[in-house]
Amino acid sequence: MKLLIPGPVTTRPEVRAAMAEDIAPWDNDFRPVLAEVQARLLPIAGGIPGTHAALVLQGCGHFITEAALRSYLAPIGHAKSGRILIPAIGAYADRMKRLATEAGRDVVSLALPDQVPADPAAIAAALAADPSITHVGAVYSETGTGVIHDVAALGAVVRAAGRRMIVDAVSAFGALPFDLAAQPEVDAVVFTSNKCFEGLPGLGFAIGRLDGLEANKGNAGSWSFDLHSIHEQSLRSPGSFRFTPPVQVLSAFRVALDIYEAEGGRPARHARYQANVDALYTGIQRLGLSPYVPREHQGPVVMNTHAPADPAWNLQTFVDGLKRRGFLISNFYNTPTPSFRVGCIGAITPEDMNQFVAAIDEVLNEMQVRNRSPKAVAV
Amino acid sequence: MKLLIPGPVTTRPEVRAAMAEDIAPWDNDFRPVLAEVQARLLPIAGGIPGTHAALVLQGCGHFITEAALRSYLAPIGHAKSGRILIPAIGAYADRMKRLATEAGRDVVSLALPDQVPADPAAIAAALAADPSITHVGAVYSETGTGVIHDVAALGAVVRAAGRRMIVDAVSAFGALPFDLAAQPEVDAVVFTSNKCFEGLPGLGFAIGRLDGLEANKGNAGSWSFDLHSIHEQSLRSPGSFRFTPPVQVLSAFRVALDIYEAEGGRPARHARYQANVDALYTGIQRLGLSPYVPREHQGPVVMNTHAPADPAWNLQTFVDGLKRRGFLISNFYNTPTPSFRVGCIGAITPEDMNQFVAAIDEVLNEMQVRNRSPKAVAV
Repeated sequence: MKLLIPGPVTTRPEVRAAMAEDIAPWDNDFRPVLAEVQARLLPIAGGIPGTHAALVLQGCGHFITEAALRSYLAPIGHAKSGRILIPAIGAYADRMKRLATEAGRDVVSLALPDQVPADPAAIAAALAADPSITHVGAVYSETGTGVIHDVAALGAVVRAAGRRMIVDAVSAFGALPFDLAAQPEVDAVVFTSNKCFEGLPGLGFAIGRLDGLEANKGNAGSWSFDLHSIHEQSLRSPGSFRFTPPVQVLSAFRVALDIYEAEGGRPARHARYQANVDALYTGIQRLGLSPYVPREHQGPVVMNTHAPADPAWNLQTFVDGLKRRGFLISNFYNTPTPSFRVGCIGAITPEDMNQFVAAIDEVLNEMQVRNRSPKAVAV
Repeated sequence: MKLLIPGPVTTRPEVRAAMAEDIAPWDNDFRPVLAEVQARLLPIAGGIPGTHAALVLQGCGHFITEAALRSYLAPIGHAKSGRILIPAIGAYADRMKRLATEAGRDVVSLALPDQVPADPAAIAAALAADPSITHVGAVYSETGTGVIHDVAALGAVVRAAGRRMIVDAVSAFGALPFDLAAQPEVDAVVFTSNKCFEGLPGLGFAIGRLDGLEANKGNAGSWSFDLHSIHEQSLRSPGSFRFTPPVQVLSAFRVALDIYEAEGGRPARHARYQANVDALYTGIQRLGLSPYVPREHQGPVVMNTHAPADPAWNLQTFVDGLKRRGFLISNFYNTPTPSFRVGCIGAITPEDMNQFVAAIDEVLNEMQVRNRSPKAVAV
């Protein structure tokens, strides 16, 4: 079964095989694994030793995002409280907003179209209009829409305005370029062991600035999600966790990093995912279906396609038909109008995508979906 | 290698083998796995359908403990704010205190001796003296000391005083008896996929009362750690998660539950762990070493032994010597005075323990530790 979803992604058997062992995470023979993973992640983010640290948290992408928000932005009512602007560009931006709001942070939203990258000029204008905004929360790859946002361009206006940025790069990091050294306005970029690294889910990572972490020490309001406390632990005892980690997931992640580097690292991974989405986009159009995002804004991570207008269309029936042919796609969608979502990341190739497109055609014919034009087009 | 630590514990190969598959957690073929696990856990806790729910959270024991504290106890400054009394009976009680304090909850501590079970009369007196205390936070099995606390007796005084209780049963649940039906004062009991269930680490569980969850809806101050939100999700879409889980860990947990039930469930598991610690305690005494906790208070989960007074004693050298013989124990201790800690839980038997005791003797001789009397005895 190929998982064509934005996560958990399809992994290689060697990665999963690394989970077959019982491991004590604090063992002197295992602590170097975490320390090594931290050291290997830092340069992928353009992190600078002494300026940035690679921090690891048990759990999922939402947890590490909440941890970054808490650890770099003091809550409402605190002497150092800040305000974060989160451009409303899709489902995951909405989730960042909810995480920050429920953690007692002061959030302002900015409505923007969801089918194109966020306009840096709109962010610049919002920052100019409200000097109390201290941070911008940006989503790099909107897993809802499939749009890639230009975090370098967004960061430039944030930097020019003297503000800070927190980047949710969960479904982008490892494939799309990211350079903390060139973006000193970024307090932290967050991602996970799954997604573009093609590891198993269970760990979140933040590459964060040490100065911001120190300046906000004690403000997290959660011991579990306090990145400063996590950093202190790794200073006190390199390679160790504060609490029991999903240690098999870490072991598998190291193997996933080996494969990543053997493939050619970030540029090679990006190129393969781009080839995957190119094959898919072309195929979807050839089948007479309508992509949700215009070609020029379609990112290499997730592609949404408008649900066909034909009354015979049914998402679950479609998903089940594809599954019988060895492809699993999401049985829900995150776009404002009905669509189906396909993940282009994971241990899959353009050839897999071509076979998948053929399977789509078979299933639509089986379902007798004749009208393949969009059910509804959001603008 | 046998892991003789309180977690991650030694697991069976069949459990680890269940992790070798890529899985989409929201897949219609997989959602029944979570729903089934929830249904199987509820009766082990004496939970009543309609009164209690089995709630699942990504991460570790500390995370689910923080989630329970947040979800059943409003913070300082809130109209419904409460106050939690946490008897200071060891390292994990200290951790619960820190989790609650950093989450903005009002915590009062109660100093108690750490080598004996917490005295219910002392708790009753503390509750009588401070009517503003709404909750008691109790640790069932103190992983630091190895002492099992009588949560039924503690619960009785909490119930009599009309207060509520939150129980950290992380290293006890699944082996030691627990009956929520007989303890209506318990808002939630928390545990993990590892420990006495002998699964892999990566998921936390709470069996919690629905009335308390509803009464405290909206007070968690963290979307990630909001058990009410987790419960809503399982009502909306049974067997589903809000965020990506370590899905292989859940798959392995189901296999671990099969093995658990085949062994004879909780009583059988308790009996095996008791036999493990009996073999260990007797062996430790036979070697001339001194147990940290008196025989009558020694629980079946963790056993600490005083570090020998001999100047040749060195914990890391000792740990390394045992490791060369196939046994891994902690290379740190959680007691006020130097000790070494052995976990008696996991897929191990009394015969393993006998071999382990023989290995201890070999290593001590190799290290030329002749004086085996205690280095220091805390009272």
